[in-house]
Amino acid sequence: MSASPLRVVQYGLGPIGQAAARAVCTKPEAYRLVGAIDIDPDKVGRDVAEVAALDTPAGVAVADDPDAVLAAADPDVVLHTTTSALDEVAAQLVRCARAGAHVVSSTEELSFPHRQAPATAERLDRVAREEGVVLVGTGVNPGYAMDTLPLVATGGCTDVEALRVTRVVEAGARRAPLQKKVGAGCSVEAFEEGAEDGAFGHVGLRESLQMVAHGLGWPLDRLDTEMRPITADAPVETEVLQVAAGEVAGIHQTATGVVGGRPRVHLALKMYVGAPESYDAVEVDGTPPIDLRVRGGVFGDTATVGLLVNTAPLAADASPGLRTMTELPVPRAAATSPNDAT
Amino acid sequence: MSASPLRVVQYGLGPIGQAAARAVCTKPEAYRLVGAIDIDPDKVGRDVAEVAALDTPAGVAVADDPDAVLAAADPDVVLHTTTSALDEVAAQLVRCARAGAHVVSSTEELSFPHRQAPATAERLDRVAREEGVVLVGTGVNPGYAMDTLPLVATGGCTDVEALRVTRVVEAGARRAPLQKKVGAGCSVEAFEEGAEDGAFGHVGLRESLQMVAHGLGWPLDRLDTEMRPITADAPVETEVLQVAAGEVAGIHQTATGVVGGRPRVHLALKMYVGAPESYDAVEVDGTPPIDLRVRGGVFGDTATVGLLVNTAPLAADASPGLRTMTELPVPRAAATSPNDAT
Repeated sequence: MSASPLRVVQYGLGPIGQAAARAVCTKPEAYRLVGAIDIDPDKVGRDVAEVAALDTPAGVAVADDPDAVLAAADPDVVLHTTTSALDEVAAQLVRCARAGAHVVSSTEELSFPHRQAPATAERLDRVAREEGVVLVGTGVNPGYAMDTLPLVATGGCTDVEALRVTRVVEAGARRAPLQKKVGAGCSVEAFEEGAEDGAFGHVGLRESLQMVAHGLGWPLDRLDTEMRPITADAPVETEVLQVAAGEVAGIHQTATGVVGGRPRVHLALKMYVGAPESYDAVEVDGTPPIDLRVRGGVFGDTATVGLLVNTAPLAADASPGLRTMTELPVPRAAATSPNDAT
Repeated sequence: MSASPLRVVQYGLGPIGQAAARAVCTKPEAYRLVGAIDIDPDKVGRDVAEVAALDTPAGVAVADDPDAVLAAADPDVVLHTTTSALDEVAAQLVRCARAGAHVVSSTEELSFPHRQAPATAERLDRVAREEGVVLVGTGVNPGYAMDTLPLVATGGCTDVEALRVTRVVEAGARRAPLQKKVGAGCSVEAFEEGAEDGAFGHVGLRESLQMVAHGLGWPLDRLDTEMRPITADAPVETEVLQVAAGEVAGIHQTATGVVGGRPRVHLALKMYVGAPESYDAVEVDGTPPIDLRVRGGVFGDTATVGLLVNTAPLAADASPGLRTMTELPVPRAAATSPNDAT
């Protein structure tokens, strides 16, 4: 852990970025917000505290020129929350690294890019090493619930034959963009059309599975993914939308890893409105067997923010390069001040 | 991960050490057993495979001179499973480090020695750095179930107000020494006399609590521990002993960490014969709240072996020094061969 507060730039001020900025501003022993970047003209020029709905001004104006912010702020770490696609953010990550800052990013495809985008991963790793910084992608999923936590579940196993992870999310309790992302309220036809265009679905299941297989030392023969709609048996109403019986309530996505000719890793993600309960379950067929469950689930909207903020000091102390969560020390709420509790 | 098999010396061939030797010998892609140390005259001179009940000879004779074994075997890592007390093993650990070997030890007091034995911890850390090796204490408890796993449970939390860990172990399913260690079959009077002399109880709860508090960045005002007997309501019979109604079935040990004037970390360990179920539970009062449970518990006899073996490659790749589990990458069954599965 660093003894003095980490200097943090918040890059991207959507809902997750705003929440990360709030978390940073409320932990002055651990972090100091020194810059904020967003391209939205409605946010540029305003105090980041105002944009992030904090009561006390942060004394940091949102700016749209990353290079200028990075040069002026001289951050230790950038919390990067712009978009899911690695192609679109690679240049942003390089810019942060070239400014000498570690980067903890919510970009889903950065969580384990070595198989899907090996050339980009290699380039990012090279730049990070050249600059002596760490780049890492994390969040609740990918980054924790369906990869890091399941791997930790195997920590005491001398043998593992198979591993199954199930994450069920009652989407009605989540932010509106997530409810839309899972297709809630669509007809099945509209869902299927949209699904072909990539309009629906969670990004990162493939990366989670690759991270798990890598962590267990299992070379994948094949990785199969599937997505299908979950339809509502009865009408469902959330704060933001309505689903009629027979319409789409959400998604059921799976990823299966075939190892040594057999399906050995299975990840199932069900995100839908009206789910009777949220939970995360990890079942390990191994020695010893493990049956782990997080009742109520790991609530994603806040846990993604927690993972970003909690990973920052771990990244700042790690060996330079493009890292995955399995290469960093165990994630934990490291910056929780004992005086914060109410 | 190291690409070639780690050269392993097994130091201590009690039940856990024998199981570790078996695990090492059955994972040739990951480990190679190159030496074995024990002082028991019944074991010295025999092939370690015979001592550890393996079918195939290992070609390694058990020897009682650590320096000779370490010099001849030139191990990367020593799996050290001799005794719980740091005082008694410090010289053994130094000897391994001076031979240039990383050490993964089941010595409970080594899991977080910085508060209980700061001078010894400092000395071990210095020696390890001088020799460029890692020393780390681990096992199911301390090392995992009541410290590492609870910390990982907070990984997505932006705030933690309090954390409670409960480990219930049906001791009747465990090895005979554990059943005796929890006092099963004693009268309450005999238990209380023995408890004063340190005959009963689990070693490491204090270390687990200190590791959790340290991981959360919480300075402890005070650490309170308590141990009391759990008595049997009805007679209990295990494979190795009998408990009459009213006699001691096991122990209930607690450790409470007071932080900022309030009890904020509570660890409760119940190990007794006749427990209706084993489980591990972690409850985090935080944002988000976490309610994690391992149904059936993490079975200690095998999981301690798993943690020793799985930590070896992580220790071998870490920065030199005396380390705790919170400083190493996330534990996982890293050396599980996909071809091992049956």
